[in-house]
Amino acid sequence: MTTTENRPQFKVVGTRPVRHDGLEKVTGKAKYGADVILPGMLYGKVLRSPHPHARIKSIDTSGALKIPGVKAVVTAKDLPIQSDKMVELGEAHANMKQIAENCLANDKVLYKGHAVAAVAATSPHIAEEALDAIKVVYEVLPFVLNVDDAMKPGATLLHENMVTRAVLGGKPDPAKQVGKSNVSSEMRWVGGNLEQAWKDSHVIVEREYFTKPVHQGYIEPHVTTVNWNPDGKITVWTSTQHTFGVRQQAAAILQVPEGMVKVIPMEIGGGFGGKINVYLEPAAAMLSKKTGHPVKMVMTRKEVFEASGPTSGSHMKMKVGATKDGKITGWQLWLAFEAGAYPGSPVAMGAMCSSAPYIVENFDVSALDIVVNKPKVAAYRAPGSPIGAFAVESTLDELAEKLGMDPMDFRLKNAAKEGTRQITGAPLGKIGNIEVMTQVKNHPHYKSPLPVGPNVGRGVGMGYWFNIGMQSSAALNVNPDGSVSLVTGSVDIGGTRVAVAMQAAEILGIRAEDVIPTVADTDSIGWTGVTGGSRTAFATGIAAINAAEEVKKQLIARAALMWEVKPEDIEFKDGLYINKKSPKDSVTMKQLAAKMMMTGGYVTASATANPRMAGAAYGAMIVDVKVDPETGKVDLLRVTAFQDAGKAAHPSYVEGQIQGGAVQGIGWALNEEYFHTTDGVMANSSWLDYRMPTSLDLPMIDPVIIEVPNPGHPFGLRGVGEVGICAPMAAIRNAIFRATGARMYHLPMNPGSIVEAIGAKKAAGHTNGAAKK
Amino acid sequence: MTTTENRPQFKVVGTRPVRHDGLEKVTGKAKYGADVILPGMLYGKVLRSPHPHARIKSIDTSGALKIPGVKAVVTAKDLPIQSDKMVELGEAHANMKQIAENCLANDKVLYKGHAVAAVAATSPHIAEEALDAIKVVYEVLPFVLNVDDAMKPGATLLHENMVTRAVLGGKPDPAKQVGKSNVSSEMRWVGGNLEQAWKDSHVIVEREYFTKPVHQGYIEPHVTTVNWNPDGKITVWTSTQHTFGVRQQAAAILQVPEGMVKVIPMEIGGGFGGKINVYLEPAAAMLSKKTGHPVKMVMTRKEVFEASGPTSGSHMKMKVGATKDGKITGWQLWLAFEAGAYPGSPVAMGAMCSSAPYIVENFDVSALDIVVNKPKVAAYRAPGSPIGAFAVESTLDELAEKLGMDPMDFRLKNAAKEGTRQITGAPLGKIGNIEVMTQVKNHPHYKSPLPVGPNVGRGVGMGYWFNIGMQSSAALNVNPDGSVSLVTGSVDIGGTRVAVAMQAAEILGIRAEDVIPTVADTDSIGWTGVTGGSRTAFATGIAAINAAEEVKKQLIARAALMWEVKPEDIEFKDGLYINKKSPKDSVTMKQLAAKMMMTGGYVTASATANPRMAGAAYGAMIVDVKVDPETGKVDLLRVTAFQDAGKAAHPSYVEGQIQGGAVQGIGWALNEEYFHTTDGVMANSSWLDYRMPTSLDLPMIDPVIIEVPNPGHPFGLRGVGEVGICAPMAAIRNAIFRATGARMYHLPMNPGSIVEAIGAKKAAGHTNGAAKK
Repeated sequence: MTTTENRPQFKVVGTRPVRHDGLEKVTGKAKYGADVILPGMLYGKVLRSPHPHARIKSIDTSGALKIPGVKAVVTAKDLPIQSDKMVELGEAHANMKQIAENCLANDKVLYKGHAVAAVAATSPHIAEEALDAIKVVYEVLPFVLNVDDAMKPGATLLHENMVTRAVLGGKPDPAKQVGKSNVSSEMRWVGGNLEQAWKDSHVIVEREYFTKPVHQGYIEPHVTTVNWNPDGKITVWTSTQHTFGVRQQAAAILQVPEGMVKVIPMEIGGGFGGKINVYLEPAAAMLSKKTGHPVKMVMTRKEVFEASGPTSGSHMKMKVGATKDGKITGWQLWLAFEAGAYPGSPVAMGAMCSSAPYIVENFDVSALDIVVNKPKVAAYRAPGSPIGAFAVESTLDELAEKLGMDPMDFRLKNAAKEGTRQITGAPLGKIGNIEVMTQVKNHPHYKSPLPVGPNVGRGVGMGYWFNIGMQSSAALNVNPDGSVSLVTGSVDIGGTRVAVAMQAAEILGIRAEDVIPTVADTDSIGWTGVTGGSRTAFATGIAAINAAEEVKKQLIARAALMWEVKPEDIEFKDGLYINKKSPKDSVTMKQLAAKMMMTGGYVTASATANPRMAGAAYGAMIVDVKVDPETGKVDLLRVTAFQDAGKAAHPSYVEGQIQGGAVQGIGWALNEEYFHTTDGVMANSSWLDYRMPTSLDLPMIDPVIIEVPNPGHPFGLRGVGEVGICAPMAAIRNAIFRATGARMYHLPMNPGSIVEAIGAKKAAGHTNGAAKK
Repeated sequence: MTTTENRPQFKVVGTRPVRHDGLEKVTGKAKYGADVILPGMLYGKVLRSPHPHARIKSIDTSGALKIPGVKAVVTAKDLPIQSDKMVELGEAHANMKQIAENCLANDKVLYKGHAVAAVAATSPHIAEEALDAIKVVYEVLPFVLNVDDAMKPGATLLHENMVTRAVLGGKPDPAKQVGKSNVSSEMRWVGGNLEQAWKDSHVIVEREYFTKPVHQGYIEPHVTTVNWNPDGKITVWTSTQHTFGVRQQAAAILQVPEGMVKVIPMEIGGGFGGKINVYLEPAAAMLSKKTGHPVKMVMTRKEVFEASGPTSGSHMKMKVGATKDGKITGWQLWLAFEAGAYPGSPVAMGAMCSSAPYIVENFDVSALDIVVNKPKVAAYRAPGSPIGAFAVESTLDELAEKLGMDPMDFRLKNAAKEGTRQITGAPLGKIGNIEVMTQVKNHPHYKSPLPVGPNVGRGVGMGYWFNIGMQSSAALNVNPDGSVSLVTGSVDIGGTRVAVAMQAAEILGIRAEDVIPTVADTDSIGWTGVTGGSRTAFATGIAAINAAEEVKKQLIARAALMWEVKPEDIEFKDGLYINKKSPKDSVTMKQLAAKMMMTGGYVTASATANPRMAGAAYGAMIVDVKVDPETGKVDLLRVTAFQDAGKAAHPSYVEGQIQGGAVQGIGWALNEEYFHTTDGVMANSSWLDYRMPTSLDLPMIDPVIIEVPNPGHPFGLRGVGEVGICAPMAAIRNAIFRATGARMYHLPMNPGSIVEAIGAKKAAGHTNGAAKK
């Protein structure tokens, strides 16, 4: 269902053409990283640490090198990057040395699966065999697997010289006592008068929550092929969300100028944030340099789980108060996120996003980034936001319950709107928060009676994601048949080829099918940011619009030349170029294109966009569940997912994004987790044991698109890729409460934990002993 | 040796950096068409006609289809193109139906080797085996192998309805009687008063010449891989000089819009004009469509000789008169060129070019295009010009001899210069004709005594090539390390990546090495003309210059922003951006690039060029030969090749072009020919029997670059790729005369023909009975 405001209709934007890459992908013809075959290519494999924390005393590679077919072995000592230098990234600062160490451990291994050495051989089998012949002597160290253990006094330190970075309101906090710690940073935002707020409160709810790391679960594992030419040119064929980021990181780690690295994007079998940083490229590059051959490396699924980035596990505390009529008074939030082996969890984003749907005037929000002996976390769809939302949306549900208010009425009473200051002090722009909440409240699903039967309940939750802007480039070339080639640097994960093509088509008054999109390598298009942050259809779309406007301008000039009038005498309307001086003279783009060579040559244009007003996204979910109290099994009976798309460029793919986000949230809510044994080993590193939802586990996810146009985009687009994952965990948790009377405080809410919670409730009334203070 | 006029020095243009593609090419890492390997790929082979002329009565493919591994067979009936329609090409009109029929014969086969059917199978061996199982019933027809036989009354007609197109001075000639004929066109240019000219002549020489088809002799055979997706998208990986031309021809023959075809250029192992039209693509595309798999096809060397395009064989007549003091009075030229199986020899260009070095006021020039039962000719380095030059430069040598004049003095007396009207009536632009002639005359080689010994002689010859312009596109993207990615659509045959990169570098004040050139596919760059016509360094260079100027403009704005001044306050000098208001403030491109993200994002620009003033090229050769009168063997003792480069962008590669053209001319002069037996079969279709010169046959070719700047290019460039092939045949022929006293009128001047000519001379004095009337 799409709700469209009363505004000028578009011809292309908002329609549902078949995506340009669709057929290639469904027929298996699209070329992925695994399809790269080069003459003389070698195969690389990685030796990984069996220990969650250990010092590397020595590595003896001589045995491996004796095996026929083994061509080279590399370790961290082979990586050119030497110093702990901070290299400026396009969108953020990243510690390149740590990224390098995550690719090949230097002095210490920090998690089970941490890469220690890599081998190149004439076959993957020989390379694998050679791993066994590498002798590593470890000094095994104690390890920590969660934030609470990591913060204990005397806990083993992953980075022995790391001192907590204390930040208050975005600035260093000199009042905070800091020392050597596994806490890499503690960010805090305070505002209003919290002490007074608690006094003004009629009801206060205070709860604690625990979540586990979950993986993005992309189908395609990490795969790369690197060729290092003797003249210094490095070519990388890889599966990545960010070709220019891979270029940047590879160049920094290999200590070559960026211009010497060419990254060729293959099709990508899912990313969800997990395919932004490099994992295999540095080792593959050094193996290629040593051997003079291209080297291909593919992770196994076990390696993907153990050594690429899931998102954070967490421990969160929330205290929130409200007046009798439901106005939020005080807001205290404490989030501690696992960063994995190196600093950099999305905890600050979790703090900001989870507070963003509401007006909070008196607040104290803390966000702690804590290293633990697990794989370094990576971005995962709206990084941090779903975790924070689980705590916030769960606690607010309890608060509404205590107030005896409808949960949506309570939310609407406190809903942030344009101009509301966020905890950072920045005011919100034009947003669809109230519109989303109103749609939820008025939706037939929300108004309908619960399905009949026992142990059935309905829950709701909200979600927020910033959406980001950043630079994109686009080039358009007009073909003589009137079609237009569109070149961008944006890897297409979720249908952005067509979404961007449609925007160019809209400007030019042609069909989406007449735009031919290409995703180019880093040598062939201007700098373009990550396919992530829900930015691609938005920002690359604007770049395409800018290029299309330039093409239109040139075509107007051609039409003017043809009719011997001035460009300002040409009117462009509905794809027609009309001579205002003689309105019977009109031509289509196709007709103009056929005359290009006679009117000055072929038409081409390139443009960039660096938009600032990305337009934040709000989403929500209504979910009906049925719980089997004997087994703890949760069946989803009905799911409706809401999202403000600004303007849905291609509603089918927006719906797909909403549904995909919902499904990942459902998996996170009910089943998915990194299950670590007490010896620090992930026990479920396979698709069989890491339980993602399949179509058999799911009802139809009914997507509802709300359209509150984003003034920062010519057609009103907002990013749509991420916010859908934020609401499900709390919505399902709140539904489970209404079905069973049990409140859940841990994710995943798997059958065992539900049976346990129902049992605890029976034993102690409505009090959850573990979480309530 | 380089002669540079006294003009502003460039920093990059005129230097000799290593070409960007050099290392990849010499180490075997560059990817050619043969390196394309795709999942599920099939292999195609072509069944070819054993007859030079026959009607196809039937084709039975059922036997082939029964062979295990054979997936499909196609014939001309499978090609979508149906009607004899003329499709407009970028640079010329071509009869697409004929191009299609040359790829797969329809009703008739017109030469031995003409493609009749194609097979796709799981291996090339199975495909080859399957060819034998295709049963073709032919009705064998009489055939013609040269222009004289083809013009005889009652000669077999290749195209039974073809009527001669008669043109006088560029317009249809209604006075000419035409009928059904193998002569496809007869173009004629007349001017002045030829009758009076003969009367005014002190000396008249009238001669006839015969030349044979010769092949471009590229090392890499034709190779293509085509994938036809079920959604209609066609991808072509091929070795071509003109990706957009392949797109255009494939689209026309397959009857799909051009935008549905994507041509990916692989590196090219030589082209010289022979890799412009499609040969294998239509069959490979239809096989891919039928099977749903990509299909790869590679020609054998025999197929390259028999079925791709050599240049024309010819019969030419020339009559030229002069006054006693050496002024040319009358100029009568009759050129009849073999077109091969379909119309379209370069005879008109041969007529125009060979007359272009001279002032000819009274003339009658005819150019006949004649079909014969041989492979359709293709462009070959300065198409037509070397053939015409052989006639003209040979005849003028005899005229000078009769006048007792030095051959260069005679040429200088009649030399065309800026403003001289050509036979078409168009005046010449700024040219280096006189400068080249003067350099020849003053060169130490020309002034030196002949090497000692008997049967030694020296000859000279001139050459001319138009050079062409046409559209090119270029895009530049600035990298944060200050390097610049350069995207063009120009396949790099002879070093144009570096030559174009240097021009961008010159504008930006950076090193050629800091420009990273990419040759993009047809979906990824604006329309770009053929790599041919000596246009690439010139026209694609101008596109790169235009894009670089735009980049510079943007960088100036960034510097202005940084220093808070106006763009006009920034001075660009020697690669530095200087604040005129505070001249100690200056930044390099590298420094500015590092600050791009803070000054508005990355910098990108694209541009096109459609230059008109390509600047014609003149060349010359001095050659010393020694002839063994017993065996007829010719040894080249010393060769000096002259050429006006306008401005040599990269002198090494200009010298390489001069040397390469000279060597191909030498092969054409002495050894190369299509030797057809009387049954119409090429008897020497292998490298063993088709005798191209090797390094052992050749002395050092001493290249002399003359630089008469072309006002049509910002740095004065002229095209340099072709004119070097024009002079050698006549120069060597004139040297052989001075060594032996024998005048040669046939190419090649192989040992047998020289022995024969010496014998004839001995028998009949200085008269060559065969050629003199």
